[in-house]
Amino acid sequence: MGWLRGPTWWRADQRRHWTGDAVAGAVVTVLVIPQSLAYAMLAGLPPTMGLYASVWPVLAYAFLGSSQVLAVGPVAVTSLMTASALLPLAVAASPEYVALAMGLALLSGLMLTLAGVLRLGFLAYFLSQPVISGFVSGVAILIAIGQLPGILGITVPGRGVAQTLVGVWQNAHLIHAPTAVLGVGAVVVLWWARAHLARLWGRWFGAPVVGAWMARMAPLVVVLVATLIVLASGGAPSLGVAVVGPIEPGLPQWQAVSLDSAQWLSLCLPALLIALIGFVESVSLAQAYALQRQQRLAPNRELVGLGVANVLSGFTGGYSVAGGFSRTVINASAGAQTPMASVVAALLMAGVMLGFSQAFEVLPVAVLSASILVSVLTLFDAQTLRQAWRYDQADAWSWLATFAGVLVVGVEWGIGLGVVLSLAVLVWRSSRPHMAVVGRIAGTEHFRNIERHQVQTLPGLIALRVDESLFFANAAALEEKVADLLSKHSDTRSLLLILSAVNRIDTTALIMLDELERSLSLQGVRLSMAEVKGPVMDRLGQTDLGRRLASRIYLSTNEAFNAHR
Amino acid sequence: MGWLRGPTWWRADQRRHWTGDAVAGAVVTVLVIPQSLAYAMLAGLPPTMGLYASVWPVLAYAFLGSSQVLAVGPVAVTSLMTASALLPLAVAASPEYVALAMGLALLSGLMLTLAGVLRLGFLAYFLSQPVISGFVSGVAILIAIGQLPGILGITVPGRGVAQTLVGVWQNAHLIHAPTAVLGVGAVVVLWWARAHLARLWGRWFGAPVVGAWMARMAPLVVVLVATLIVLASGGAPSLGVAVVGPIEPGLPQWQAVSLDSAQWLSLCLPALLIALIGFVESVSLAQAYALQRQQRLAPNRELVGLGVANVLSGFTGGYSVAGGFSRTVINASAGAQTPMASVVAALLMAGVMLGFSQAFEVLPVAVLSASILVSVLTLFDAQTLRQAWRYDQADAWSWLATFAGVLVVGVEWGIGLGVVLSLAVLVWRSSRPHMAVVGRIAGTEHFRNIERHQVQTLPGLIALRVDESLFFANAAALEEKVADLLSKHSDTRSLLLILSAVNRIDTTALIMLDELERSLSLQGVRLSMAEVKGPVMDRLGQTDLGRRLASRIYLSTNEAFNAHR
Repeated sequence: MGWLRGPTWWRADQRRHWTGDAVAGAVVTVLVIPQSLAYAMLAGLPPTMGLYASVWPVLAYAFLGSSQVLAVGPVAVTSLMTASALLPLAVAASPEYVALAMGLALLSGLMLTLAGVLRLGFLAYFLSQPVISGFVSGVAILIAIGQLPGILGITVPGRGVAQTLVGVWQNAHLIHAPTAVLGVGAVVVLWWARAHLARLWGRWFGAPVVGAWMARMAPLVVVLVATLIVLASGGAPSLGVAVVGPIEPGLPQWQAVSLDSAQWLSLCLPALLIALIGFVESVSLAQAYALQRQQRLAPNRELVGLGVANVLSGFTGGYSVAGGFSRTVINASAGAQTPMASVVAALLMAGVMLGFSQAFEVLPVAVLSASILVSVLTLFDAQTLRQAWRYDQADAWSWLATFAGVLVVGVEWGIGLGVVLSLAVLVWRSSRPHMAVVGRIAGTEHFRNIERHQVQTLPGLIALRVDESLFFANAAALEEKVADLLSKHSDTRSLLLILSAVNRIDTTALIMLDELERSLSLQGVRLSMAEVKGPVMDRLGQTDLGRRLASRIYLSTNEAFNAHR
Repeated sequence: MGWLRGPTWWRADQRRHWTGDAVAGAVVTVLVIPQSLAYAMLAGLPPTMGLYASVWPVLAYAFLGSSQVLAVGPVAVTSLMTASALLPLAVAASPEYVALAMGLALLSGLMLTLAGVLRLGFLAYFLSQPVISGFVSGVAILIAIGQLPGILGITVPGRGVAQTLVGVWQNAHLIHAPTAVLGVGAVVVLWWARAHLARLWGRWFGAPVVGAWMARMAPLVVVLVATLIVLASGGAPSLGVAVVGPIEPGLPQWQAVSLDSAQWLSLCLPALLIALIGFVESVSLAQAYALQRQQRLAPNRELVGLGVANVLSGFTGGYSVAGGFSRTVINASAGAQTPMASVVAALLMAGVMLGFSQAFEVLPVAVLSASILVSVLTLFDAQTLRQAWRYDQADAWSWLATFAGVLVVGVEWGIGLGVVLSLAVLVWRSSRPHMAVVGRIAGTEHFRNIERHQVQTLPGLIALRVDESLFFANAAALEEKVADLLSKHSDTRSLLLILSAVNRIDTTALIMLDELERSLSLQGVRLSMAEVKGPVMDRLGQTDLGRRLASRIYLSTNEAFNAHR
């Protein structure tokens, strides 16, 4: 079991990277603090839980995961999914809500770990790229709209997209001016920094790399400046601006999760969906970096790494974690080469929580909301939609349906719809396998589609080339095709199946072929096969059908043609 | 639209079959009456509904369906599914229950018709043969066990397998002797007739075809004899034997189905499952006969035929119908050549209901239960399990899981589990596509797997042949394979993908290939392709990736090898 071998980055030859890793770890810690607080609030939790979730889980992933650069912590999508699962069950930020969030992390962690031990990493492929992209884009819009009340300093009833927008519109007269100035100002500055700062810095000062770092630091700077403005204007109470509020200093404590069995049961489905989405996001991110750096990623080790990270998060006052996009980008571009960077980041985060956590008490909520809004909007992925629309419209419709599902019906249903659509498209495509009746090109041993080439056929013989593996979803299509051909060519005495592209025949297709052979025999039509691949032949040979066909399986199509008379 | 063209059997050249068809129709009518009554009772309905369901639906299918021999009517599996869906909602055989059963038929009929119009016949392929077989086998056992109390003349609380068996055991002292004698006697006679009568008749009288007909008539004969015994012993009341009871003579009446919207809503999921299972059963049966007779089956016309049949059943006091196995076998072997046989059967059934329906009032229930028990046990399909176990254990486990799901958790969950398992096996297999690194056989233009053959490779070039279409479920596997190969061969300067077996590349795989090309470029590795099929090339050419690769796509692997230096 690969995931028991321990981390390779501990080896002597990797230690030369550790200084660079320490720098990267420090950069990540500083830059992701506002994000961690903001995502915890997005999940409806006390902000400190975002920091708690950045210590033990990060260490666990560093030792168990297989990616060298993936940075684990609270992320936008699973934070929203946490809120969406728990708000119907308890009051946000109440002790019960906190316990449920910890239980949710624990459950999805156990599911991920179990899936890793059972080597079920392949299940992540139930989702196609357009479905993932449509889902994440829908969630991005959902989160962005959800930030509007916080940025404007108003409260609205309900949580849906329509409810929030209508609520903002109806309560526009209640907008709190100081809050809105800070919030909207932060959105404008952050948006500008993300869109233009790196490029302009390069043009002004000729150092694009420094400019890119300035753009990444923008959220931290904006938060600091906003805090100073609030303090300079007489503090949050006199301004009436909402701030993060009291934070208990100290490290995350080990604690049991106390829920009753009905509560555990109601968490099962959301935990499964959060595990699935968290895993899919983390693994696509990690895979992109592994490929860039010529490293190997082990999906089942990723499952165990993320799983144990979530279990520890649940036991230490954190909530669901996954591989985060912006964290990982910062980590990689700050020079991280091994997970030692994450170890440093976790230790520094612990230090921050011991010494400086009270500094975050005065952060204005509107500015955190602004930073969430600007950062999630980059997750909106119109490019995949555009690409799919031009390349394969079935995929584009999957994108749109999943996107609309998330916005209209909700996060869980959206992803469910996406899985069903992915599979329906797969079955639909598979149920129409490519097949061609072939003939011989005169004077050669080459065989080609009779509809596209000038070829010779033999009277009484139909040679059908099957271009895909045969299994339950397309077995009936072959049967129909044969019935169709026979009803058109009533003089047929021999049917030759050319299986050069068939890698597998499952039980359903085997039963179909067996019945086909029997019913053709009754009609006086001889079924034969050519170019059966080795592994297919090995299995087929042991069946009753294989024994009946034994003398009618030819190595090449040419041989089968020559045997027909 | 093929299903609007009308029946071909109406044409002059088919009329010569009509005499034979009339005989077959008469035979079917007589032999399936006891079965129709019994299945309606199995569904928890008044027995006459089984007769009602054998008139209008049969006519509808005859005119709209595409099979020449499929005989439609009440069947065991959907009868059980009807009971399983409705017993939690209403008291069996109550007016409300009857209305719900009609609504259920109406809804699944509408779903089937809609699916046919939308050409969704391919959805039936969501189920693999082992899953269908495991499901039907589970249902057979469930039905068989459910007949025990009726055969023994006792009542047991609850409906599950365990509850029924425990109930029979605990109430064994309440067994009603005359009922049990009739019931168990009927089981023994019917079992013996089914297993041995045809063979022994052939040995004794030298006429195996007559023997086969004797075996088929056994249920009718047993029912008649049992009825005579009851009448001769002083009638049902004095014996204490349960009989079918009062039957209103007359034809099925057109009537509205009156349910409230909450009731319609609660019928949606069961209706979908009944539609799915009814269609899958009917179509596999019809396909088997179409193949034997060199006829064409149109799955989407089957959907419309079965759909309208169920809609009419719902409007005329019937319940869910489908293509029945024993009906169809009787129909085909009695000589039916066209659906005129079904038209005759429907008209005769109407005549029976007008003139003779009260004759069925004295049929003993225990004997009907016995005939259900014996006939459903033939649906138990150990052969497919055995075959799958030897051929492909993943399929055998699907069989066992679906079978166990039906018995332990229930009919709906069993079929849900089956669909999920079919798809999971499909995705699992697809997620591990066959790929081979190839080299050139010296002195030829042939390329073979380097692990199996003595071949030449070129330094710095990896030639990878992909043996399956690329799509979301296996795109990551190709990406991983490439990363693996590159990490093992650090001198690689060129990666050649041989796509001779790739019929499709979906958007997910396209995005993966695009990213792969970019990241290989950054590492100084040149990605090229060979043997790209026409339809794949057409799509690829319009993409950004296709334009970047344009000069690196070779017609043959040999050409690509020659271009490498």
